[in-house]
Amino acid sequence: MSAAMRTIEWDYEHNQLKMIDQRRLPTQLEIVSYTDYRQVAWAIREMVVRGAPAIGAAAAFGLALAAFQSKADDLQHLKNDLNLAAEELRSARPTAVNLSWAVARLMSVAADFSGSANDLRASLLREAQAVADEDVETNRRMAVFGADLIADGDTIIHHCNTGALATVDWGTALGVIRMAHEQGKRVHVLVDETRPRLQGSRLTAWELDQYGIPYDIIVDGAAGYFLRSGQAQKVLFGADRVAANGDVANKVGSYMLALAAHDNGVPVYSVFPASTVDLSITSGDEIPIEERSPGEVLDLQMHGERVAPLEATARNPAFDVTPGRLLTALITDRGVIYPPFELNLPQMIRGRE
Amino acid sequence: MSAAMRTIEWDYEHNQLKMIDQRRLPTQLEIVSYTDYRQVAWAIREMVVRGAPAIGAAAAFGLALAAFQSKADDLQHLKNDLNLAAEELRSARPTAVNLSWAVARLMSVAADFSGSANDLRASLLREAQAVADEDVETNRRMAVFGADLIADGDTIIHHCNTGALATVDWGTALGVIRMAHEQGKRVHVLVDETRPRLQGSRLTAWELDQYGIPYDIIVDGAAGYFLRSGQAQKVLFGADRVAANGDVANKVGSYMLALAAHDNGVPVYSVFPASTVDLSITSGDEIPIEERSPGEVLDLQMHGERVAPLEATARNPAFDVTPGRLLTALITDRGVIYPPFELNLPQMIRGRE
Repeated sequence: MSAAMRTIEWDYEHNQLKMIDQRRLPTQLEIVSYTDYRQVAWAIREMVVRGAPAIGAAAAFGLALAAFQSKADDLQHLKNDLNLAAEELRSARPTAVNLSWAVARLMSVAADFSGSANDLRASLLREAQAVADEDVETNRRMAVFGADLIADGDTIIHHCNTGALATVDWGTALGVIRMAHEQGKRVHVLVDETRPRLQGSRLTAWELDQYGIPYDIIVDGAAGYFLRSGQAQKVLFGADRVAANGDVANKVGSYMLALAAHDNGVPVYSVFPASTVDLSITSGDEIPIEERSPGEVLDLQMHGERVAPLEATARNPAFDVTPGRLLTALITDRGVIYPPFELNLPQMIRGRE
Repeated sequence: MSAAMRTIEWDYEHNQLKMIDQRRLPTQLEIVSYTDYRQVAWAIREMVVRGAPAIGAAAAFGLALAAFQSKADDLQHLKNDLNLAAEELRSARPTAVNLSWAVARLMSVAADFSGSANDLRASLLREAQAVADEDVETNRRMAVFGADLIADGDTIIHHCNTGALATVDWGTALGVIRMAHEQGKRVHVLVDETRPRLQGSRLTAWELDQYGIPYDIIVDGAAGYFLRSGQAQKVLFGADRVAANGDVANKVGSYMLALAAHDNGVPVYSVFPASTVDLSITSGDEIPIEERSPGEVLDLQMHGERVAPLEATARNPAFDVTPGRLLTALITDRGVIYPPFELNLPQMIRGRE
């Protein structure tokens, strides 16, 4: 990503929210502007913006947008309007906890507020901007912690997109790889294409091109081959929600990737900010898994022709859960956490809250 | 498959080889005819015909074709021409052992032959036809053995295409599913789409439509989700080469699928005829793994647009090795083989040779 544009940012001149339309990449780098929080909810649902931290920032700015949209003169009416918007934004996608975390953070500003309606509008925008700015700082800190674990010459298998595009800037797992590269370590990335939406081929490959990091795209099912034949030294991915015991919900396919790494003694790291941890959830089995449209699986063309039979049906879970036992460590903005996660993860999160 | 057409068959009227062009399915059911063994080698390489047993039959008929093409009047010259053709056919693809097995079988007919050149031509065609006919019979036997292991109500995850299209007729793993269905057991198939060439979406879904067996297509990375959430009771796939210790080389992604099944206590079966076993290979690590063109990974369109960046590179291993320790049993035309495979597999193969 260039320093000039974040994945998502507030346009202070026109009081609108701008973001990269990630559905257009890598063919086109298109910036869209939203003035209605309902458009933001739609953009989250349709994956114009995706990636747990980026979704959190989008929802925060979405609430600020709702505040500016509201015609309310008095505080109570504004809060009522905000409640409606919060509900719609929160329900846009069910798995990533950053979304409800960001909405809750802005709503607690509103709840505690006792000034004028316009002052609350300004406060909410400040808070949303803080969510975005902190995300960049948080990611940079994670990247530094994580880069320590990367060795010169490592080939790293990476799933989905966890780069600048998945956050406000910098990235989680891909941020670690980028930091190691900027520190002068030679790294090579095997990019899981990440079916069905191909965030690996479309977004991660595009980002790696920007950073000048060498890579090869592979199909998701090929990771096992590279791991078993000793051609990969690390596996890295992000997280959409982490349970108190270290179970990680992430893009579908992460679990099988972690299994293949574990079976070959290759370290697996999940990289995420503290806001991705949901201590109210004791194990990954309780994390709701979004099932998306069959079209994402079926609407694919090879040589210009549709692949699946016209009458075919599909199942399309967007995430899966990797049990903590398969993970070597969790890389967070508060440091690297090792097993036993059920002890060390809540301690780390609560200890510094 | 309709009874009217096998995946591959000899046209006795015109002395040519006819096969379904599997690259066109499911959009078009196109039959191609070959009169030159070099076309057959090309068709194997380009995957007009694919699936280990089908490749074996194609190579056998390819050699018969070479015999008819040869202008040789005397036996020695014909054998020389056959040697050249055998070499070209054998090297078309490296992983599936059925290919070299079928070529060796026809070449041993030639080696032992002492009649006229024309008599050898007729003998080779008879032998190729026997390879094809035996394949159908072999597959039917496997299907009966395997169907015993399928329970009424099972949801089965299936990788790649192992049906009638992968063989001369009937199929290996998909033959088992079809037999269970014909026996009246209610089965539901979760069809791994099987990147990169999408044999699952294109071929297996198409075959299941013909048989009236209900299915849903899933991305390869989603199998772990269904296994972990208890939504699948069996995992079935074929084999391209099996080592003496029960390690199975099969379509890339099989290893990760077996890992996910094993991690959840779900039985995994590999289904193959005895001709897929290569006792000269002691472990899967010695099986050569074909790496195919990066274009198979990169040339994919979503909503009409190319997915990967134009300058992107890819790695494309076509197969991987599933260690025998992950497999519950091996389903063969000689019965179901249980661990320890290193003992029971060679015994079964040698014992009845």
